[in-house]
Amino acid sequence: MKVFGIDPGSERTGYGCVETDGSRHRLVACGAIVTSPRLGFPAQLLRIHQQLSALLAEHRPECVAVESVFYAANVRSALKLGHARGVALLAAIEAGYTCAEYSPAEVKCAVVGYGRAEKHQVQEMVKLLLGLAEVPTPHDAADALAVAICHLHSQRPDVVTEHVRATRSKPKSWRDYIPPGDNER
Amino acid sequence: MKVFGIDPGSERTGYGCVETDGSRHRLVACGAIVTSPRLGFPAQLLRIHQQLSALLAEHRPECVAVESVFYAANVRSALKLGHARGVALLAAIEAGYTCAEYSPAEVKCAVVGYGRAEKHQVQEMVKLLLGLAEVPTPHDAADALAVAICHLHSQRPDVVTEHVRATRSKPKSWRDYIPPGDNER
Repeated sequence: MKVFGIDPGSERTGYGCVETDGSRHRLVACGAIVTSPRLGFPAQLLRIHQQLSALLAEHRPECVAVESVFYAANVRSALKLGHARGVALLAAIEAGYTCAEYSPAEVKCAVVGYGRAEKHQVQEMVKLLLGLAEVPTPHDAADALAVAICHLHSQRPDVVTEHVRATRSKPKSWRDYIPPGDNER
Repeated sequence: MKVFGIDPGSERTGYGCVETDGSRHRLVACGAIVTSPRLGFPAQLLRIHQQLSALLAEHRPECVAVESVFYAANVRSALKLGHARGVALLAAIEAGYTCAEYSPAEVKCAVVGYGRAEKHQVQEMVKLLLGLAEVPTPHDAADALAVAICHLHSQRPDVVTEHVRATRSKPKSWRDYIPPGDNER
């Protein structure tokens, strides 16, 4: 199963494609679509849409997963993010996908096992789950991979258990940040 | 010159196409793309995009004008509106148009001559400027026509004068709502 995760933004839209054989996840591709505000907002939207459409056609995933958004710093940034997310969703829908949406807490829960985990904890866990030497950059790509992994785990609860078990023995400095018992919340 | 105005919304996207010979405006088409929330938000976005693309291909306007948005009741509705506006802009950009954006105050100024005019005053003026027997319905269509007329007037200041002169003698009950001198603000 191949899942394509998207983390939309008007200036940086992260994407990450993850493949799983049911027990091990593999990174297929990840990156960020960077658009300069100098292009003008409409041209930025066009670029996000075109590049995502091209990536979906290239990787032909089985599913597309996107982080759901209910929060923004203010109305202005919500409007901007909404535009970018709208064209990103459209690229997936036009390619025939039903987008799976996950809240940030769901992504954190599925990846780290704790809904209020810090961003860097999620990124560290993405690195571990995909067996990478380092955290994928840019951070938007790592965030998109986390959404894709969240979808894999949501579909297959057994996969979560497998992976949490496989990674639990490794030293993880970020675990020090989680107060004991918080994982069970 | 033919201008296509868009008033985006997630459930109702108004559109209106206006043609001018330089002195008189003519209504070409107007209406609203109504999408039921029952379809699901992604399907609503797809419908807005598909229908606007089809309308632009049908009417082949010279320009596309959209109301710029900086305000929403809250972050949640801003996100929703942003999505709809994003796919509406995309339809125009993909068809090769550079969208002209006008603030609500600019639209009111260009159509009524007063930046803080009421919604019904704008609609009444749209009716007068297009020589219609009644205000176009639904209201989203009238709003989109106002944006198109605003673009026409912004391009041709002489057209404004012509039309204001042509319509000034007609009885307009809404004028009673404007305190004397407010037009000059």
